[in-house]
Amino acid sequence: MDVPTGFDPTFILALNLAGTFVFGLSGGLAAVRARLDLFGVVVLSGVVALAGGITRDLLIGTPPATFRDWRYLAAAGAAGVVCFFASRLLERVQRGVLLFDALGLGLFCVTGATKALDFEIGPLPAVLLGAITGIGGGMLRDVLLREVPTVLRHELYAIPALLGAAVVVAAQRADSTSPVFPALGAVVCVALRLIGLRYGVSVPTARGRPDDGEEPDG
Amino acid sequence: MDVPTGFDPTFILALNLAGTFVFGLSGGLAAVRARLDLFGVVVLSGVVALAGGITRDLLIGTPPATFRDWRYLAAAGAAGVVCFFASRLLERVQRGVLLFDALGLGLFCVTGATKALDFEIGPLPAVLLGAITGIGGGMLRDVLLREVPTVLRHELYAIPALLGAAVVVAAQRADSTSPVFPALGAVVCVALRLIGLRYGVSVPTARGRPDDGEEPDG
Amino acid sequence: MDVPTGFDPTFILALNLAGTFVFGLSGGLAAVRARLDLFGVVVLSGVVALAGGITRDLLIGTPPATFRDWRYLAAAGAAGVVCFFASRLLERVQRGVLLFDALGLGLFCVTGATKALDFEIGPLPAVLLGAITGIGGGMLRDVLLREVPTVLRHELYAIPALLGAAVVVAAQRADSTSPVFPALGAVVCVALRLIGLRYGVSVPTARGRPDDGEEPDG
Repeated sequence: MDVPTGFDPTFILALNLAGTFVFGLSGGLAAVRARLDLFGVVVLSGVVALAGGITRDLLIGTPPATFRDWRYLAAAGAAGVVCFFASRLLERVQRGVLLFDALGLGLFCVTGATKALDFEIGPLPAVLLGAITGIGGGMLRDVLLREVPTVLRHELYAIPALLGAAVVVAAQRADSTSPVFPALGAVVCVALRLIGLRYGVSVPTARGRPDDGEEPDG
Repeated sequence: MDVPTGFDPTFILALNLAGTFVFGLSGGLAAVRARLDLFGVVVLSGVVALAGGITRDLLIGTPPATFRDWRYLAAAGAAGVVCFFASRLLERVQRGVLLFDALGLGLFCVTGATKALDFEIGPLPAVLLGAITGIGGGMLRDVLLREVPTVLRHELYAIPALLGAAVVVAAQRADSTSPVFPALGAVVCVALRLIGLRYGVSVPTARGRPDDGEEPDG
Repeated sequence: MDVPTGFDPTFILALNLAGTFVFGLSGGLAAVRARLDLFGVVVLSGVVALAGGITRDLLIGTPPATFRDWRYLAAAGAAGVVCFFASRLLERVQRGVLLFDALGLGLFCVTGATKALDFEIGPLPAVLLGAITGIGGGMLRDVLLREVPTVLRHELYAIPALLGAAVVVAAQRADSTSPVFPALGAVVCVALRLIGLRYGVSVPTARGRPDDGEEPDG
């Protein structure tokens, strides 16, 4: 954070901690559903919550902030404990994992892009780095629970993260330091992701063998 | 290792190499059981043996020691070769993978916490980093062989690693440089893990839907 | 690249970009076969294409070049788009994933070893680092698609990568700066890998329980 983008660092920190917490909820809830034990829930919560930020920092080439700032660990741990003890409550939020995952995606695509800009990474790589930061946590959650990562499957996942990050990068290019733009980027990403989930919007699939009949409908 | 914790660096190096070797055995044995070929065995041995230390160094933010010090590579490679040629002997040690995994967990939780303290990471993050270092190798082994990682399943796995690391951190906080404490930390971790395995101690599981009948017993 | 090995940096860059592109093709084709959508294809292409170089840089302990040089991102993205729109054409190249994977293995084992030497890593670790760089992309592709990584299964995979990297390291030890040796290393690796595939050469498997009859032939 030595060469600031101009966005309020406290605001970006708040987004980062919120992203850590909600990704932690998505990891923890997935763990509860997979019937893991208390520590499995907390561990998966922590891994998913922290993977995005760690990935971002490793890809930028700076020591991960995770173990330098206790607040990230606290946010991740709190998410795990909440999931374990309040899992029934959280389950009432239908498709809780997907909701919290969407929120984490939106928050991390913004903070990932912001931190990349702070380290003087160019605009296009910063957009990609933002998206990757958002995707990292959920991807690791799916790998650990032996599912093909959501981002690789049929739903609209990568585009919202790219657009959210692009809003932040565009604002910085226009020399805006208003916190409106990071917030807008996160909202755009979350909204698109939720709309995609709600209406089942999907991206076209390549048809390598259109007539092989391997997957009959109905 | 520029800012030493006070623990004898040679002793810590010995623990690290021992941890590398036993995690290598756990990876190699798992590979033999999965009927991988010679190089698959050596590769899995190496990946599992080195993943803990690499994870630790990446999370601390220092270049991984693995490729700077040939002894880590030698320990990992030796473990792979031993597994391939002596797999029948090692199999006689009932549940060999679990035993070597427990030993690796104990050794790496201690050395991970020690190295974190060397880099002036705070006590709580150092405990977590120790545990994560211990967990890393086995987690990667399970992912590569397409199993849900042990640490996420029903057995007591995270607590021993956290306690082992905590012993080291507590000793350093008390300004003790005695090698007794790293050794004690490793013993505590290994003993707890083996007791957990022997008596099937497990941590409570969250019951999201206690009456959903999805998993009838018997 | 501050302390050059002596090999022409432009030539090494070209090999690196070619490796990025062909690993991208192998990832993208695997994604098309797994019926992922457009963005899934591009994402898997990018992840596989860039994982080798990122792994190399993280293990060396230098910030990943991926996000500092737009050409890597362009090569990876182009591979994904090509796979999506030309998947039928690429499928005509029988076993396209395996072919592109072999090419990526050959190119990355050479560039990985070269970059390791640039950072003054010793000869044996540089050979291993070259092989690991080559193996990284395909291993991640397999993990994400829930397959046990090729390198761990029955085919000749690790040896070609080790030999290819060894050619480069031997040349540098002999103070040769001729581009013949990196090219030769890549060719040796690719040729051995393809021969192994063509003739089904495999490395011996440890027989833990020779008479358990779990896998009857025929």
